[in-house]
Amino acid sequence: MPGRGLVTLGIGDDASLVRVAPGCELVLTADLLLEGVHFDFALHPAESAGHRALARSLSDVAAMGGTPRFALLSLAVSPRAGRAWAEAFYRGFFRLARRFRTTLVGGDTAVSRTRMFIDVVAAGEVERGHALRRCGARPGDAIFVSGQLGLAALGLRWLQRPRGLAPRGHVRPPGRNLALALHKHLYPEPRCALGRFLSRRKLASAAIDLSDGLASDLARLCQASGVGATIDARLIPFPGVLVRPTEALRLALEGGEDYELLFTVPSRQAKRIPPKYQGVPLTQIGVITLKKQRWLIGLDGRAKPLAAAGYDHFARASSRRAP
Amino acid sequence: MPGRGLVTLGIGDDASLVRVAPGCELVLTADLLLEGVHFDFALHPAESAGHRALARSLSDVAAMGGTPRFALLSLAVSPRAGRAWAEAFYRGFFRLARRFRTTLVGGDTAVSRTRMFIDVVAAGEVERGHALRRCGARPGDAIFVSGQLGLAALGLRWLQRPRGLAPRGHVRPPGRNLALALHKHLYPEPRCALGRFLSRRKLASAAIDLSDGLASDLARLCQASGVGATIDARLIPFPGVLVRPTEALRLALEGGEDYELLFTVPSRQAKRIPPKYQGVPLTQIGVITLKKQRWLIGLDGRAKPLAAAGYDHFARASSRRAP
Repeated sequence: MPGRGLVTLGIGDDASLVRVAPGCELVLTADLLLEGVHFDFALHPAESAGHRALARSLSDVAAMGGTPRFALLSLAVSPRAGRAWAEAFYRGFFRLARRFRTTLVGGDTAVSRTRMFIDVVAAGEVERGHALRRCGARPGDAIFVSGQLGLAALGLRWLQRPRGLAPRGHVRPPGRNLALALHKHLYPEPRCALGRFLSRRKLASAAIDLSDGLASDLARLCQASGVGATIDARLIPFPGVLVRPTEALRLALEGGEDYELLFTVPSRQAKRIPPKYQGVPLTQIGVITLKKQRWLIGLDGRAKPLAAAGYDHFARASSRRAP
Repeated sequence: MPGRGLVTLGIGDDASLVRVAPGCELVLTADLLLEGVHFDFALHPAESAGHRALARSLSDVAAMGGTPRFALLSLAVSPRAGRAWAEAFYRGFFRLARRFRTTLVGGDTAVSRTRMFIDVVAAGEVERGHALRRCGARPGDAIFVSGQLGLAALGLRWLQRPRGLAPRGHVRPPGRNLALALHKHLYPEPRCALGRFLSRRKLASAAIDLSDGLASDLARLCQASGVGATIDARLIPFPGVLVRPTEALRLALEGGEDYELLFTVPSRQAKRIPPKYQGVPLTQIGVITLKKQRWLIGLDGRAKPLAAAGYDHFARASSRRAP
């Protein structure tokens, strides 16, 4: 395990100074959280915005098998966000940062004359040569996912519903499962411990975090690795208890922001993957294939091509990797 | 000199992987560039916006005595910025990045429904124990500045003037000096070589970059060091050739975005500071004092207290360090 990242000089000077543990590489990632694209004053509590701003970046560190160490937070504050909003935002941000032992070492703030813009850079450590990349999947590797897919998208759908109405396709009244879905959307959990487990033991041949839905992110992993895949809808862990199975499958394939991990494991190692890791289910949903097409075996047992349906956050504006 | 920072894995995965040279610390800094606060479509060419977005962060690395290595660029693109604007923005960004051997290793892009929002994180390397901080100035230390102060603010003033009119207080017609001022505002030069020279030879006891004007930034350095200062207006290198001396002095004290270095040098070392470093003049403008007040000896030779006048970019909205 890498040593704790050391902050030699914190916030307050022209820049901060940090040390990277010997034998480690630094994992660097940046993620935007924009009002009206990734969150909305009317839907999201400020604490959730603070949590999600950091969780997006920590999830990327997790997908590389890294341990989060440092973060930088840049914030253009809209005049509509008052002092109470800002305090709750920071509360959400710092609560997650503390849990993941991530030190805020810098950032910038300014007054935005229009909307809120938030950018978080996270830096983590990973032992040299142990990072999980997207490009290592090989034909015959087992495809695994952590957690339940589509739950965050389901939570968002309930948040967005007209008051008193259930979203289309939903069959059960709200309850404990709904609370779970709302929580998953508002306070997603970066899978850092799982990422470290996979990287330290060299179990995974490739990994990616599920930020845009299984269909898109599996396509990215396959493209980076130059392979194809067959996955089985009947194996995908989706929230069938709150919606009809076909709708649940759609949420799992196309719903974003689950921040679970999708990873591949060489077949001889697959039996070393436990059914759960620290309480999070790990499920094999398919295999990597030599032919570059991606196939989905449907709920009816019939195979069909799997398109990389894009996930659009609020279906208002798109966000993609830069540049 | 630190070894070249090594990018193990560039853009395209969940995150990037970089290595820090043995014996080095990492310098981390973030800076926002907002449309309507730090730049304006009507005033600033896109190339200048790209240049300044990176220059702000590189200047912070310079003020720590670091060597820039990596950058992350997050961009919320306004619909008003077309493809040509974006291409020119990246041209300005990457031209400066190439000159300073800074590799773009990450970032995020999204579509902003209102204004442009740009956040740049720069990471540099500095030998352990060699970083220049704000807090090391001691009574008796000589105070130096690089370059000419107030030039960038003068350039901005000419950019903002009503067509055909000279800004208030200006006495000379445009010419080579005006071109210099415009260039200084649009394409400021981070003083990385000077910062490295000072840190490597352990010449400076403290340093800060002049982003908000001499009065504010000297106040910050003095507060961090727990000291006072006396500076002499007759020694400050300001652009007297384009404006009346009193106005030029005001620009030097209150005008922002010069991105020159302000640094202090123990008196016995002051003679080791050359009059120029790589063509950039280095000028002693005063001394650090035990008493915590800051004094300005005016152009008339009379001493008066020096207030930390804040610099307001376009005098529209404020930007300060977070959080």
